[in-house]
Amino acid sequence: MKIAVLAPIAWRTPPLKYGPWEKVASMLTENLVKKGHDVTLFATGDSVTSAKLRWVCETPYEIDKSADPKVLECLHISFLMEKAAEFDIIHNHFDFLPLTYSRLIKTPMITTIHGFSSEKILPVYIKYNSTSAYISISNANRHPDLSYLETIYHGLEPSDFIFSNKKENYLLYFGRIHPDKGLHSAIEISEKSGLPLKIAGLIQDDNYFNSLFSKIDGQQIEYLGNLGREDSIKLLTSAKALLHPIYFEEPFGLSVLEAMMSGTPVIAFNKGSMPELIVNGKTGFLIGNVAEAVNSIDKLEKIEPEDCRRHAIQNFSIDKMTDSYIRAYKKVLNQ
Amino acid sequence: MKIAVLAPIAWRTPPLKYGPWEKVASMLTENLVKKGHDVTLFATGDSVTSAKLRWVCETPYEIDKSADPKVLECLHISFLMEKAAEFDIIHNHFDFLPLTYSRLIKTPMITTIHGFSSEKILPVYIKYNSTSAYISISNANRHPDLSYLETIYHGLEPSDFIFSNKKENYLLYFGRIHPDKGLHSAIEISEKSGLPLKIAGLIQDDNYFNSLFSKIDGQQIEYLGNLGREDSIKLLTSAKALLHPIYFEEPFGLSVLEAMMSGTPVIAFNKGSMPELIVNGKTGFLIGNVAEAVNSIDKLEKIEPEDCRRHAIQNFSIDKMTDSYIRAYKKVLNQ
Repeated sequence: MKIAVLAPIAWRTPPLKYGPWEKVASMLTENLVKKGHDVTLFATGDSVTSAKLRWVCETPYEIDKSADPKVLECLHISFLMEKAAEFDIIHNHFDFLPLTYSRLIKTPMITTIHGFSSEKILPVYIKYNSTSAYISISNANRHPDLSYLETIYHGLEPSDFIFSNKKENYLLYFGRIHPDKGLHSAIEISEKSGLPLKIAGLIQDDNYFNSLFSKIDGQQIEYLGNLGREDSIKLLTSAKALLHPIYFEEPFGLSVLEAMMSGTPVIAFNKGSMPELIVNGKTGFLIGNVAEAVNSIDKLEKIEPEDCRRHAIQNFSIDKMTDSYIRAYKKVLNQ
Repeated sequence: MKIAVLAPIAWRTPPLKYGPWEKVASMLTENLVKKGHDVTLFATGDSVTSAKLRWVCETPYEIDKSADPKVLECLHISFLMEKAAEFDIIHNHFDFLPLTYSRLIKTPMITTIHGFSSEKILPVYIKYNSTSAYISISNANRHPDLSYLETIYHGLEPSDFIFSNKKENYLLYFGRIHPDKGLHSAIEISEKSGLPLKIAGLIQDDNYFNSLFSKIDGQQIEYLGNLGREDSIKLLTSAKALLHPIYFEEPFGLSVLEAMMSGTPVIAFNKGSMPELIVNGKTGFLIGNVAEAVNSIDKLEKIEPEDCRRHAIQNFSIDKMTDSYIRAYKKVLNQ
């Protein structure tokens, strides 16, 4: 099957640090190649892939801020659309704009909806619901006004993570720093439980981070920056638990999966896709507020790190995800 | 000839007040219909036209700020692109985004480049230079990296303006309020010459307007707001001169033409398209700074209002513009 994967160009594919959409596009691309498919990745020019790489935008627009993202985006998308006839299927990871070209080409398009930045983008998804098959990344993220081909959960490569059942005495906050992600609550949980908190992630909201800065004393609460791959892996493996006190209906939550792959339980606010990812009481705790989170820390010893890892591998491996996508492509192509 | 005219959707077509791209798209559309062509106007739903009106965006996004302009823009553009086969030619007044669909359709596209918002949009125009014929709106606005079919000046309907050779004792600033347009210099010219200044236009830069607010005393310097059509016409007709002390390479300058159509001379900084619009010493003065502007006011009595009007009608009538576009369409269609 000749597959074109359209990645975003905000970050490199795979991203060096933050960039969840690019990360998923990369994982899938590499595994489709491994399984013998003929894959062309449309991404930034500095991307790294075993597929054929095609690009018009050399450097991610979040890195080189001198360019106009709107200009780069439409050039990136039209570059693929003009070559559509070379492919059996186009897999769009780029949100709504590519959909508006889909009726002008003959190649079928499948779109993974990585999340809705706002209800305002919905009219595009509604219009093109009959043109492109949609994949939801969790049942929670399905919009009632849209119809979907299937939910396909993100998957990770188990060997990319280090499993250990020996945990150190710290809680972990791992992800972008934004009110949605609830760093303020993670800090509160750390303070009330007495367990130190290590924080790693991209600062996406400067004002929010600054409002919490006085609490970051480098002892009880420590900020380690936006870490690269190797440091992240170690941090995930050794944590007593990942805190994930989210304040939005999170479509997926890759960090939750990364923690479980490392044998680390997750204490998450029970919102969005969390109940689809975490087995309450077995791979972590689905709780409702800070007090419940603090209580759940006492029960962490009942969680077996092996169960976390096993659950992640069985349900969220890259292998399973790739096979699901191949089945979805075949469904779209009536094969 | 079956012509699709693609207008922007920032404002209604024609705009009620500000909206120069929409204004030109409207003028052309109405006159193409008058000349017997089969025209479909793609614009906002509240637009007014004698052509067929097609729309997906009911209210201009500058009026209804609840929508996401990026979403409306791509839906508006793709709506036309998906109907491209119904037309002999598509006339794009919508800047660069429609170009990125142009290689996916068979109908030829002609694009009027109303100006470059930034050098950053140039890569799109460069890529599609071979796909869409480009029309420059002045020779001054031609970019050296692009090739053009032709320069076609904007035109106005002479009967839309009231000619008078009796002028009142005020200078006029007429246009959007932004540092590029030099309101601060217009105020200085008024103060130094002693002639009162009337100001009309959309406030596009609040900080800039606020910085000048203390000078607007309602006597020597008066701000009348963003006026509708009728009030604007009167103001243009009765002014002693239009001040146009611009600080950018203005691609055209509709207000300069509106003044001349009303028999009102224009005192403009000699930048951009100004020497293509104004005959120095005959329909106004091309000057270099505030002091020269003040000097030129003494020479205004040498300008004949009739010469201003005649020059405007001979060179910048809507009839001339429409015929030029029809010739350009035929050239594109090899007719």
